[in-house]
Amino acid sequence: MTNLQTPTLTDLIAARRWPEIREIVAQQPVAETADLLLELEQADRVLLFRALPRSLSSILFAELEAVQQNELLDDLTKEETRHLLAELRPDDRTQLFEEMPGQVTQKLLNLLSGEDLREARQLLGYPEESVGRLMTPDYVAVRPHWTISEALQQIRKMGHDSETVHNIYVVDNTWRLLDALDLRRFILADTSRQVQDIMDDTFVSLPAFADREEAIQAMQRYDLSVLPVVDSDGILVGIVTFDDVLDVIEAETTEDFHKTAAVGPVLGNYRDATFGLLYRKRVPWLVILVVANLASGAVIASYEATLEAAIALVFFLPLLIDSSGNAGSQSATLIVRALAMGDVKLRDWAQLMAKEVSVSAALGLTMALAVWGIGHWRGGYEVGLTVALTMFLVVLIGSIIGHSLPFILSRLNWDPATASAPLITSLADITGVLIYFYIATRLLGLAG
Amino acid sequence: MTNLQTPTLTDLIAARRWPEIREIVAQQPVAETADLLLELEQADRVLLFRALPRSLSSILFAELEAVQQNELLDDLTKEETRHLLAELRPDDRTQLFEEMPGQVTQKLLNLLSGEDLREARQLLGYPEESVGRLMTPDYVAVRPHWTISEALQQIRKMGHDSETVHNIYVVDNTWRLLDALDLRRFILADTSRQVQDIMDDTFVSLPAFADREEAIQAMQRYDLSVLPVVDSDGILVGIVTFDDVLDVIEAETTEDFHKTAAVGPVLGNYRDATFGLLYRKRVPWLVILVVANLASGAVIASYEATLEAAIALVFFLPLLIDSSGNAGSQSATLIVRALAMGDVKLRDWAQLMAKEVSVSAALGLTMALAVWGIGHWRGGYEVGLTVALTMFLVVLIGSIIGHSLPFILSRLNWDPATASAPLITSLADITGVLIYFYIATRLLGLAG
Repeated sequence: MTNLQTPTLTDLIAARRWPEIREIVAQQPVAETADLLLELEQADRVLLFRALPRSLSSILFAELEAVQQNELLDDLTKEETRHLLAELRPDDRTQLFEEMPGQVTQKLLNLLSGEDLREARQLLGYPEESVGRLMTPDYVAVRPHWTISEALQQIRKMGHDSETVHNIYVVDNTWRLLDALDLRRFILADTSRQVQDIMDDTFVSLPAFADREEAIQAMQRYDLSVLPVVDSDGILVGIVTFDDVLDVIEAETTEDFHKTAAVGPVLGNYRDATFGLLYRKRVPWLVILVVANLASGAVIASYEATLEAAIALVFFLPLLIDSSGNAGSQSATLIVRALAMGDVKLRDWAQLMAKEVSVSAALGLTMALAVWGIGHWRGGYEVGLTVALTMFLVVLIGSIIGHSLPFILSRLNWDPATASAPLITSLADITGVLIYFYIATRLLGLAG
Repeated sequence: MTNLQTPTLTDLIAARRWPEIREIVAQQPVAETADLLLELEQADRVLLFRALPRSLSSILFAELEAVQQNELLDDLTKEETRHLLAELRPDDRTQLFEEMPGQVTQKLLNLLSGEDLREARQLLGYPEESVGRLMTPDYVAVRPHWTISEALQQIRKMGHDSETVHNIYVVDNTWRLLDALDLRRFILADTSRQVQDIMDDTFVSLPAFADREEAIQAMQRYDLSVLPVVDSDGILVGIVTFDDVLDVIEAETTEDFHKTAAVGPVLGNYRDATFGLLYRKRVPWLVILVVANLASGAVIASYEATLEAAIALVFFLPLLIDSSGNAGSQSATLIVRALAMGDVKLRDWAQLMAKEVSVSAALGLTMALAVWGIGHWRGGYEVGLTVALTMFLVVLIGSIIGHSLPFILSRLNWDPATASAPLITSLADITGVLIYFYIATRLLGLAG
């Protein structure tokens, strides 16, 4: 497609050659145009945006991040904003309202027409992070007694304005969902038959108030790219499509990753995150863990006599407490992820603990053998034995802490991902120094 | 649906009431039946499997995990296995061959018919974790000069055996991909027009040899639930559907999670992971990090005189090295995730480093203030100053290490997720003890 003779899109924009620009843009995926838009100066940005056909500019707008959406809205006239909002898909509109600052959202809501305003209010009425916030009411519904031919007519009529026609919903006269059918069934069926003849009475739906993570699980479990959403009476209120769910997966995964490192979730693009946001998301756990680490220090202080008598013990301190923390982080991460994927349930705790104990005992033994010689070489027979025995126990106990904490948090209805590597490390440290100095005092025949 | 009067599916299976079982199973999602199958005794499992219609049993089989697939294959006759393989979708078949032990795969390949064998060999010929391994050759293709009516006929003809008809592919007479069109366009178009009239010449395709992560990125970026796959000449060789991509997202995310905790990726369900597998995936990093931790010990040993002179310094050792590791883990995780999502590129390194330094300096200052008083109280003016100054520096330097390592690994074409919390912690420890004892020796006026 690229040709050295033809000017690039950026050149064309600089030259304000709008008809050619429109032609090129119409032939490339919207995501590419969105990238181009971001590279332009703010003044050029709004010009390009205005030059696009309205149907395209609304899709393009939905692709941008909140920061850029806000900037662009600043440059548009009230009338342009009104048209843009009217063209946006209801689910993209909900997301925009969610992400804009409160006063901007209020201004935008005022620009909506009566019907759109009612719809927006309804969608924003669902709790944050609920399925209702993701859905769009633009789908195609048919009735069971219609012929396939009538249904296809309805699909043609409603198809333009629907987010997707890949799934068609069968509803009764109270709009209660009776079935969800792949469009394929309609294409393959004899047109003179009735919709009820091709119904299979098997469908999966989500309640609008359900957590959005349930949409991810349902799509994965049932291999569906679109899910119908119903209210508590089974009335069809909207659909959730796979593209929204992909975004949710990304956001939820990021949140879990950040939690494993004791960072509050940093939403949006990391590159755009401000100093203040990053500071606020990182400082709480760092400070909280000071307390835990001081406890480790207090344990050490209580064994000051032991330490003074055998200063060589300090040599192995980082090794022992880090190994315990590392083994604990491994265990915790395995469980946190398995719980998040639904591979492991709370009731599996005891059975998995047996496996964890055997695996970590083997790991502890390996580690003990690895450090025995070094301990012996540096401090003699007793120090070698102390270090090896401690290593075995701290790897075992660190693993058990790491294994149990996500289950305990989950039991208390906390997010198991709160069992972060730093938290596990700090907890493992305290038990690690306790074990180390207890064993050292005994084996080396020192006073505690 | 549940009624206390009617027997449950498990009861029906115990009573071998197959006609009723078949009726219930036909009306519930396959994933539910798969769950039921797993709860049954092995003998009952194969009975239920045999009682199902063949088209259903092949879909059900694809839903099972490798362990259960292998068990089930053991119980089926050669003829049953042959039928099952013939019914499996090509992409599900590739996955089965990938996951079974080598000799089982060979036995299965021998059961395939000529055409299926050729297809399986071709799909297995693509590299592991490539797009080619995910794809299925069952799609609907049409020609540009066909009328919409002819195209719809083709869709009806091929629709039954295609993985999806939601996207229709336009190819020329060499099967080169010309366009990818939503089925909606065909439904909405005037049937007397030609396919080329509804083409938009905008399509996204993936090379068969591309890494499977590219399929994830393309689906997210372009909001597509199906992607066409082409060879190096642009010839259409298959399609990748969103359900396969959802599975890849899950697997890749798990791999990244495990890496952040220095665990080799544990594939499949954690509950089914064997002792040996878990041991092998956990032991390498634990042992490797012993070396790093011994280096920390060696630093401490070289300052033995300082320590003996001021044993109170040991009290703060866990606090200081843990805080450094925690800050470093936070920074590393933020960057690893931002790199994985494509939010941050290698070239952003310098710009982001400036932000990292300012944020971590602020964090270091906060932490220094938090511990100054405690240091002063335990060890007097000099110890307070030493602890505060060290805290500021180790948080800053730990963060810089955590921030830089993922970029460096990425630059070396390693996976940035290798910058695990345990690795960062160990690196931060070495620099932490160096800084601590250097400052202590200077400030306390002790010999090094």
